[in-house]
Amino acid sequence: MKQFEEKTLNSQTIFTGKIISLQVDDVELPDGKKAKREIVKHPGAVAILALTNDKRIILVKQYRKALERSLIEIPAGKQEAGEPPEKTALRELEEETGYVCGTLEHIQSFYTSPGFADEIIHLYFAKHLKKKENPLQVDEDEFVELMEVSLDEALQLIADKKIYDAKTIFAIQYLQLQAALTSK
Amino acid sequence: MKQFEEKTLNSQTIFTGKIISLQVDDVELPDGKKAKREIVKHPGAVAILALTNDKRIILVKQYRKALERSLIEIPAGKQEAGEPPEKTALRELEEETGYVCGTLEHIQSFYTSPGFADEIIHLYFAKHLKKKENPLQVDEDEFVELMEVSLDEALQLIADKKIYDAKTIFAIQYLQLQAALTSK
Repeated sequence: MKQFEEKTLNSQTIFTGKIISLQVDDVELPDGKKAKREIVKHPGAVAILALTNDKRIILVKQYRKALERSLIEIPAGKQEAGEPPEKTALRELEEETGYVCGTLEHIQSFYTSPGFADEIIHLYFAKHLKKKENPLQVDEDEFVELMEVSLDEALQLIADKKIYDAKTIFAIQYLQLQAALTSK
Repeated sequence: MKQFEEKTLNSQTIFTGKIISLQVDDVELPDGKKAKREIVKHPGAVAILALTNDKRIILVKQYRKALERSLIEIPAGKQEAGEPPEKTALRELEEETGYVCGTLEHIQSFYTSPGFADEIIHLYFAKHLKKKENPLQVDEDEFVELMEVSLDEALQLIADKKIYDAKTIFAIQYLQLQAALTSK
Protein backbone atom coordinates (compact mmCIF):
# COMPACT_ATOMS: atom_id res chain seq x y z
CA MET A 1 0.00 0.00 0.00
CA LYS A 2 1.73 3.15 -1.20
CA GLN A 3 -1.34 5.41 -1.39
CA PHE A 4 -0.70 9.06 -0.52
CA GLU A 5 3.02 8.29 -0.64
CA GLU A 6 5.25 11.09 0.60
CA LYS A 7 8.34 11.45 -1.58
CA THR A 8 11.60 12.03 0.31
CA LEU A 9 13.34 15.20 -0.87
CA ASN A 10 16.00 15.21 1.82
CA SER A 11 16.79 13.18 4.93
CA GLN A 12 18.94 14.51 7.74
CA THR A 13 20.22 12.33 10.58
CA ILE A 14 20.07 14.39 13.78
CA PHE A 15 21.20 11.79 16.30
CA THR A 16 22.49 8.23 16.40
CA GLY A 17 22.29 6.65 19.83
CA LYS A 18 22.68 3.26 21.47
CA ILE A 19 19.00 2.36 21.04
CA ILE A 20 17.34 4.90 18.77
CA SER A 21 18.30 7.34 16.08
CA LEU A 22 16.46 10.45 14.92
CA GLN A 23 16.09 11.83 11.41
CA VAL A 24 14.13 14.70 9.89
CA ASP A 25 12.87 14.15 6.36
CA ASP A 26 11.71 16.86 3.96
CA VAL A 27 8.85 15.35 1.97
CA GLU A 28 6.66 16.23 -0.97
CA LEU A 29 2.98 15.66 -0.17
CA PRO A 30 0.46 14.19 -2.64
CA ASP A 31 -0.73 17.75 -3.49
CA GLY A 32 2.83 18.88 -4.27
CA LYS A 33 3.26 20.89 -1.06
CA LYS A 34 6.19 20.29 1.25
CA ALA A 35 6.35 19.19 4.87
CA LYS A 36 8.84 17.92 7.47
CA ARG A 37 8.59 14.51 9.16
CA GLU A 38 10.36 13.76 12.45
CA ILE A 39 11.23 10.08 12.54
CA VAL A 40 12.66 7.88 15.29
CA LYS A 41 14.37 4.70 14.10
CA HIS A 42 14.29 1.70 16.43
CA PRO A 43 15.69 -1.83 15.93
CA GLY A 44 12.40 -3.57 16.79
CA ALA A 45 11.44 -5.46 19.90
CA VAL A 46 9.69 -8.53 21.22
CA ALA A 47 7.31 -9.01 24.12
CA ILE A 48 6.36 -12.29 25.75
CA LEU A 49 3.08 -13.33 27.33
CA ALA A 50 4.50 -16.08 29.53
CA LEU A 51 2.05 -18.30 31.37
CA THR A 52 3.27 -20.57 34.17
CA ASN A 53 1.95 -24.10 34.46
CA ASP A 54 -0.56 -22.92 37.10
CA LYS A 55 -1.79 -20.25 34.65
CA ARG A 56 -0.12 -17.23 36.20
CA ILE A 57 1.15 -14.38 34.02
CA ILE A 58 4.78 -13.39 34.51
CA LEU A 59 5.23 -9.64 34.89
CA VAL A 60 8.31 -7.51 35.27
CA LYS A 61 8.47 -4.30 37.25
CA GLN A 62 11.12 -1.83 36.16
CA TYR A 63 11.90 1.86 36.26
CA ARG A 64 11.22 3.69 33.00
CA LYS A 65 13.29 6.87 32.81
CA ALA A 66 11.19 8.27 29.94
CA LEU A 67 8.19 8.29 32.31
CA GLU A 68 10.10 8.90 35.57
CA ARG A 69 8.16 6.02 37.15
CA SER A 70 8.16 2.26 37.51
CA LEU A 71 5.90 0.27 35.21
CA ILE A 72 4.66 -3.29 35.38
CA GLU A 73 5.03 -4.94 31.96
CA ILE A 74 5.26 -8.33 30.34
CA PRO A 75 8.87 -9.36 29.63
CA ALA A 76 10.21 -7.54 26.57
CA GLY A 77 13.37 -6.39 24.94
CA LYS A 78 14.84 -5.06 21.78
CA GLN A 79 16.25 -7.16 18.96
CA GLU A 80 19.98 -7.34 18.47
CA ALA A 81 21.20 -6.64 14.91
CA GLY A 82 20.19 -9.52 12.64
CA GLU A 83 18.53 -11.49 15.45
CA PRO A 84 15.28 -13.23 14.44
CA PRO A 85 12.44 -12.23 16.79
CA GLU A 86 11.85 -15.80 18.06
CA LYS A 87 15.45 -15.89 19.26
CA THR A 88 15.09 -12.49 20.95
CA ALA A 89 11.93 -13.75 22.67
CA LEU A 90 13.66 -16.86 24.06
CA ARG A 91 16.67 -14.82 25.20
CA GLU A 92 14.64 -12.07 26.87
CA LEU A 93 12.37 -14.59 28.57
CA GLU A 94 15.37 -16.36 30.09
CA GLU A 95 17.24 -13.14 30.98
CA GLU A 96 14.33 -11.34 32.58
CA THR A 97 12.48 -14.25 34.23
CA GLY A 98 14.89 -17.19 34.51
CA TYR A 99 12.39 -19.37 32.64
CA VAL A 100 12.76 -21.32 29.43
CA CYS A 101 9.64 -22.45 27.53
CA GLY A 102 8.50 -25.64 25.84
CA THR A 103 6.37 -23.84 23.25
CA LEU A 104 6.53 -20.36 21.77
CA GLU A 105 3.69 -19.15 19.50
CA HIS A 106 3.52 -15.86 17.64
CA ILE A 107 0.38 -13.91 18.66
CA GLN A 108 0.67 -10.65 16.75
CA SER A 109 3.11 -8.02 15.53
CA PHE A 110 2.32 -4.31 15.56
CA TYR A 111 3.81 -0.85 15.19
CA THR A 112 3.66 1.01 18.48
CA SER A 113 3.84 4.66 17.37
CA PRO A 114 3.55 4.90 13.56
CA GLY A 115 3.14 8.69 13.72
CA PHE A 116 6.79 9.23 14.65
CA ALA A 117 8.62 5.90 15.07
CA ASP A 118 9.23 2.67 13.16
CA GLU A 119 9.32 0.49 16.29
CA ILE A 120 7.62 -2.85 15.76
CA ILE A 121 6.84 -5.28 18.57
CA HIS A 122 6.50 -9.01 17.94
CA LEU A 123 4.33 -10.51 20.66
CA TYR A 124 4.76 -14.20 21.57
CA PHE A 125 2.91 -16.63 23.81
CA ALA A 126 5.30 -18.77 25.89
CA LYS A 127 3.92 -21.88 27.58
CA HIS A 128 5.22 -25.04 29.28
CA LEU A 129 7.70 -22.99 31.29
CA LYS A 130 10.59 -24.43 33.27
CA LYS A 131 12.91 -22.58 35.65
CA LYS A 132 16.45 -22.78 34.39
CA GLU A 133 19.50 -23.28 36.60
CA ASN A 134 22.09 -20.57 35.93
CA PRO A 135 19.95 -18.60 33.42
CA LEU A 136 21.29 -15.81 31.22
CA GLN A 137 21.59 -12.56 33.18
CA VAL A 138 19.85 -9.26 32.38
CA ASP A 139 21.89 -6.42 30.93
CA GLU A 140 23.96 -4.68 33.58
CA ASP A 141 21.91 -1.47 33.35
CA GLU A 142 18.58 -3.31 33.90
CA PHE A 143 16.97 -3.76 37.32
CA VAL A 144 13.79 -5.76 37.32
CA GLU A 145 11.46 -7.34 39.90
CA LEU A 146 9.39 -10.38 38.94
CA MET A 147 5.71 -10.92 39.72
CA GLU A 148 3.40 -13.82 38.89
CA VAL A 149 -0.31 -12.97 38.86
CA SER A 150 -3.61 -14.56 37.88
CA LEU A 151 -5.68 -13.13 35.03
CA ASP A 152 -8.08 -11.56 37.56
CA GLU A 153 -5.18 -9.97 39.43
CA ALA A 154 -3.76 -8.63 36.16
CA LEU A 155 -7.13 -7.08 35.28
CA GLN A 156 -7.18 -5.46 38.73
CA LEU A 157 -3.66 -4.04 38.18
CA ILE A 158 -4.95 -2.46 34.94
CA ALA A 159 -8.01 -1.04 36.75
CA ASP A 160 -5.68 0.37 39.42
CA LYS A 161 -3.45 1.95 36.72
CA LYS A 162 -0.42 -0.02 37.90
CA ILE A 163 -0.29 -1.61 34.47
CA TYR A 164 -0.23 1.25 32.01
CA ASP A 165 1.65 -0.16 29.05
CA ALA A 166 0.07 -0.86 25.65
CA LYS A 167 1.66 -4.24 24.86
CA THR A 168 0.94 -5.55 28.37
CA ILE A 169 -2.71 -4.44 28.36
CA PHE A 170 -3.10 -5.93 24.87
CA ALA A 171 -1.62 -9.27 26.00
CA ILE A 172 -3.84 -9.46 29.10
CA GLN A 173 -6.92 -8.59 27.01
CA TYR A 174 -5.86 -11.35 24.60
CA LEU A 175 -5.87 -13.87 27.45
CA GLN A 176 -9.24 -12.55 28.63
CA LEU A 177 -10.64 -12.98 25.11
CA GLN A 178 -9.31 -16.55 24.84
CA ALA A 179 -10.96 -17.36 28.19
CA ALA A 180 -14.27 -15.81 27.05
CA LEU A 181 -14.21 -17.66 23.73
CA THR A 182 -13.40 -20.99 25.41
CA SER A 183 -16.15 -20.73 28.00
CA LYS A 184 -18.90 -19.96 25.46
CA MET B 1 6.04 3.60 42.31
CA LYS B 2 9.62 4.85 42.38
CA GLN B 3 11.38 1.49 42.86
CA PHE B 4 14.75 1.19 41.14
CA GLU B 5 14.59 4.93 40.51
CA GLU B 6 17.29 6.27 38.20
CA LYS B 7 18.63 9.58 39.45
CA THR B 8 19.18 12.20 36.75
CA LEU B 9 22.76 13.48 36.80
CA ASN B 10 22.51 15.51 33.60
CA SER B 11 19.92 16.03 30.88
CA GLN B 12 20.83 17.26 27.42
CA THR B 13 18.23 18.34 24.86
CA ILE B 14 19.40 17.12 21.44
CA PHE B 15 16.46 18.23 19.29
CA THR B 16 13.21 20.13 19.62
CA GLY B 17 10.81 19.57 16.73
CA LYS B 18 7.21 20.27 15.80
CA ILE B 19 5.93 17.01 17.27
CA ILE B 20 8.69 15.38 19.30
CA SER B 21 11.82 16.35 21.11
CA LEU B 22 14.81 14.22 22.04
CA GLN B 23 16.94 14.29 25.17
CA VAL B 24 19.77 12.17 26.49
CA ASP B 25 19.93 11.78 30.27
CA ASP B 26 22.93 10.63 32.28
CA VAL B 27 21.56 8.59 35.16
CA GLU B 28 22.79 6.92 38.29
CA LEU B 29 21.52 3.34 38.55
CA PRO B 30 20.36 1.70 41.81
CA ASP B 31 23.80 0.03 42.17
CA GLY B 32 25.60 3.37 41.82
CA LYS B 33 26.80 2.74 38.26
CA LYS B 34 26.09 5.20 35.48
CA ALA B 35 24.15 4.85 32.23
CA LYS B 36 22.69 6.96 29.43
CA ARG B 37 18.97 7.06 28.58
CA GLU B 38 17.71 8.23 25.18
CA ILE B 39 14.27 9.76 25.63
CA VAL B 40 11.70 11.01 23.12
CA LYS B 41 9.20 13.53 24.49
CA HIS B 42 5.74 13.55 22.92
CA PRO B 43 2.68 15.70 23.78
CA GLY B 44 0.32 12.71 24.12
CA ALA B 45 -2.39 11.55 21.78
CA VAL B 46 -5.90 10.21 21.58
CA ALA B 47 -7.42 7.43 19.51
CA ILE B 48 -11.10 6.83 18.86
CA LEU B 49 -12.95 3.56 18.37
CA ALA B 50 -15.94 5.04 16.50
CA LEU B 51 -18.88 2.74 15.80
CA THR B 52 -21.54 3.79 13.30
CA ASN B 53 -25.20 3.16 14.06
CA ASP B 54 -25.06 -0.01 11.93
CA LYS B 55 -22.07 -1.21 14.02
CA ARG B 56 -19.34 -0.53 11.53
CA ILE B 57 -15.88 0.56 12.71
CA ILE B 58 -14.53 3.74 11.15
CA LEU B 59 -10.96 3.35 9.92
CA VAL B 60 -8.54 5.81 8.38
CA LYS B 61 -5.94 4.91 5.80
CA GLN B 62 -2.91 7.19 5.70
CA TYR B 63 0.72 7.20 4.66
CA ARG B 64 3.16 6.85 7.54
CA LYS B 65 6.56 8.24 6.57
CA ALA B 66 8.29 6.53 9.52
CA LEU B 67 7.31 3.18 7.99
CA GLU B 68 7.38 4.20 4.31
CA ARG B 69 3.96 2.60 3.85
CA SER B 70 0.25 3.28 4.31
CA LEU B 71 -1.42 1.97 7.43
CA ILE B 72 -5.06 1.46 8.31
CA GLU B 73 -5.75 2.83 11.79
CA ILE B 74 -8.57 4.05 13.96
CA PRO B 75 -8.86 7.86 13.96
CA ALA B 76 -6.18 9.42 16.17
CA GLY B 77 -4.24 12.57 16.71
CA LYS B 78 -1.96 14.34 19.11
CA GLN B 79 -3.08 16.68 21.86
CA GLU B 80 -2.57 20.40 21.45
CA ALA B 81 -0.86 22.15 24.37
CA GLY B 82 -3.23 22.21 27.36
CA GLU B 83 -6.02 20.45 25.49
CA PRO B 84 -7.94 17.89 27.60
CA PRO B 85 -7.98 14.47 25.87
CA GLU B 86 -11.80 14.37 25.53
CA LYS B 87 -11.64 17.58 23.53
CA THR B 88 -8.84 16.21 21.33
CA ALA B 89 -10.94 13.09 20.72
CA LEU B 90 -14.01 15.08 19.61
CA ARG B 91 -11.87 17.33 17.39
CA GLU B 92 -9.94 14.50 15.73
CA LEU B 93 -13.12 12.47 15.19
CA GLU B 94 -14.73 15.39 13.39
CA GLU B 95 -11.60 16.38 11.42
CA GLU B 96 -10.69 12.89 10.24
CA THR B 97 -14.14 11.35 9.73
CA GLY B 98 -16.68 14.19 9.47
CA TYR B 99 -18.69 12.60 12.29
CA VAL B 100 -19.72 14.01 15.65
CA CYS B 101 -20.80 11.64 18.43
CA GLY B 102 -23.63 11.51 20.97
CA THR B 103 -21.57 9.62 23.56
CA LEU B 104 -17.84 9.40 24.23
CA GLU B 105 -16.54 6.91 26.81
CA HIS B 106 -12.96 6.47 27.98
CA ILE B 107 -11.82 2.86 27.36
CA GLN B 108 -8.18 2.88 28.43
CA SER B 109 -5.00 4.96 28.47
CA PHE B 110 -1.56 3.45 27.88
CA TYR B 111 2.06 4.28 27.17
CA THR B 112 3.03 3.10 23.70
CA SER B 113 6.83 2.76 23.97
CA PRO B 114 7.94 3.21 27.59
CA GLY B 115 11.47 2.04 26.78
CA PHE B 116 12.31 5.23 24.89
CA ALA B 117 9.28 7.58 24.73
CA ASP B 118 6.74 9.18 27.06
CA GLU B 119 3.91 9.07 24.51
CA ILE B 120 0.56 8.21 26.11
CA ILE B 121 -2.57 7.37 24.12
CA HIS B 122 -6.03 7.90 25.56
CA LEU B 123 -8.45 5.57 23.82
CA TYR B 124 -12.14 6.53 23.60
CA PHE B 125 -15.30 4.78 22.43
CA ALA B 126 -17.51 7.08 20.31
CA LYS B 127 -21.10 6.01 19.66
CA HIS B 128 -24.34 7.56 18.38
CA LEU B 129 -22.51 9.11 15.45
CA LYS B 130 -23.97 11.76 13.18
CA LYS B 131 -22.42 13.12 9.96
CA LYS B 132 -21.78 16.84 10.33
CA GLU B 133 -22.34 19.40 7.59
CA ASN B 134 -19.21 21.47 7.08
CA PRO B 135 -17.02 19.57 9.56
CA LEU B 136 -13.61 20.73 10.76
CA GLN B 137 -10.94 19.98 8.16
CA VAL B 138 -7.83 17.82 8.66
CA ASP B 139 -4.46 19.52 8.96
CA GLU B 140 -3.13 20.60 5.58
CA ASP B 141 -0.30 18.04 5.63
CA GLU B 142 -2.68 15.11 6.32
CA PHE B 143 -4.18 12.95 3.55
CA VAL B 144 -6.59 10.28 4.72
CA GLU B 145 -9.05 7.86 3.18
CA LEU B 146 -12.02 6.66 5.21
CA MET B 147 -13.28 3.09 5.48
CA GLU B 148 -16.20 1.63 7.43
CA VAL B 149 -15.91 -2.09 8.18
CA SER B 150 -17.69 -4.74 10.23
CA LEU B 151 -15.92 -6.44 13.15
CA ASP B 152 -15.39 -9.56 11.00
CA GLU B 153 -13.90 -7.47 8.19
CA ALA B 154 -11.62 -5.73 10.69
CA LEU B 155 -10.40 -9.09 12.02
CA GLN B 156 -9.69 -10.14 8.44
CA LEU B 157 -7.68 -6.94 7.82
CA ILE B 158 -5.56 -7.85 10.88
CA ALA B 159 -5.08 -11.42 9.62
CA ASP B 160 -4.05 -9.98 6.22
CA LYS B 161 -1.55 -7.61 7.93
CA LYS B 162 -3.27 -4.56 6.47
CA ILE B 163 -3.96 -3.43 10.03
CA TYR B 164 -0.59 -3.44 11.77
CA ASP B 165 -0.97 -0.75 14.40
CA ALA B 166 -1.04 -1.43 18.15
CA LYS B 167 -3.87 0.92 19.21
CA THR B 168 -6.07 -0.24 16.31
CA ILE B 169 -5.53 -3.95 16.98
CA PHE B 170 -6.18 -3.31 20.68
CA ALA B 171 -9.45 -1.46 19.92
CA ILE B 172 -10.69 -4.20 17.58
CA GLN B 173 -9.80 -6.89 20.13
CA TYR B 174 -11.71 -4.82 22.73
CA LEU B 175 -14.83 -4.93 20.53
CA GLN B 176 -14.35 -8.65 19.96
CA LEU B 177 -14.09 -9.20 23.73
CA GLN B 178 -17.27 -7.17 24.39
CA ALA B 179 -19.09 -9.27 21.80
CA ALA B 180 -17.81 -12.52 23.35
CA LEU B 181 -18.77 -11.43 26.88
CA THR B 182 -22.27 -10.31 25.76
CA SER B 183 -23.02 -13.54 23.88
CA LYS B 184 -22.13 -15.80 26.83
